[in-house]
Amino acid sequence: MTRDEELREERIDSELVYDGKIVHLEVDRVRLSNGHQTIREVIRHQGAVVMLAVDEKQRVLLVRQYRYPVGRILMELPAGKLDPGEEPLACARRELEEETGYAASSWRQLGSVWTTPGFTDEIIHVFLAGGLEPVEGASPDEDELLEAVRFPMPQVEEMIRRGEIQDAKTLAAILLWRLQGG
Amino acid sequence: MTRDEELREERIDSELVYDGKIVHLEVDRVRLSNGHQTIREVIRHQGAVVMLAVDEKQRVLLVRQYRYPVGRILMELPAGKLDPGEEPLACARRELEEETGYAASSWRQLGSVWTTPGFTDEIIHVFLAGGLEPVEGASPDEDELLEAVRFPMPQVEEMIRRGEIQDAKTLAAILLWRLQGG
Repeated sequence: MTRDEELREERIDSELVYDGKIVHLEVDRVRLSNGHQTIREVIRHQGAVVMLAVDEKQRVLLVRQYRYPVGRILMELPAGKLDPGEEPLACARRELEEETGYAASSWRQLGSVWTTPGFTDEIIHVFLAGGLEPVEGASPDEDELLEAVRFPMPQVEEMIRRGEIQDAKTLAAILLWRLQGG
Repeated sequence: MTRDEELREERIDSELVYDGKIVHLEVDRVRLSNGHQTIREVIRHQGAVVMLAVDEKQRVLLVRQYRYPVGRILMELPAGKLDPGEEPLACARRELEEETGYAASSWRQLGSVWTTPGFTDEIIHVFLAGGLEPVEGASPDEDELLEAVRFPMPQVEEMIRRGEIQDAKTLAAILLWRLQGG
């Protein structure tokens, strides 16, 4: 058996425990290569996008949003979930407009990250967006109240250093941007 | 009403749908400040730690691990979940030893991040660890097969750039380290 084969886990059976709006919970019995059996609880997710959108004055667009699961307002890069069958770039354009009221003319994918692969298959595609223009009559999502703000990147990095920005996808996106010459 | 009050959401009721090993799923009805009601699906999680452990040759310890939810082997910084009531630093020491067979003599917390605050309260505390020494008779977790590897930081960053490392907490930890003089 190769090292990679030794790491693999094989599904014995799977039960769909909850089929919700965002969260689809599966509880699977799996067999490890050492013969042990264990349970894996998996949140199936349709995937998401996050946008590092930079305006003509080199300011980064962020959103302040009450995050019910953590019970506080977080500052994050704009982001959103893929609709079924939606391409990540189309989703990024749609969500940037919905969350910030801006459209971008230049787009580049910086990478993709798994948010927390121990219990979910959620992947977030990371986009850099430039050439921002306000959209007339942009219509925000009524079930998602948020406040769009903008800060120069050095200030964003200072807020991360001070623990004022603690959203993992936001940090991951900024690292990808720095490693690609940002 | 202040802007922050406008962003808040108020719980109407809450149902515990699944109470598992790692995942505890709550489905709550909430009221937004605009009067709308919506459902929030929340995965309650006990929290976790991730360790950026650097050896005497400035190499970073990583683990390769089959991640059942995403169906592939990922390369990540060593990490693990808090036991009930466990302090993050104690958890970091325990998990570093379990996953890599190393103990560290110097520890510093770089920050904490929310992995995916749209649907879980999981927080990951990020530690920098130095002064590594192999532990005699270290006992790995039998339900978690993994392979410890190590690479110099420039190579780790190159793997991120090429999309060979896609784990969000790993990228977030490296950004925190870079922003704090790493």
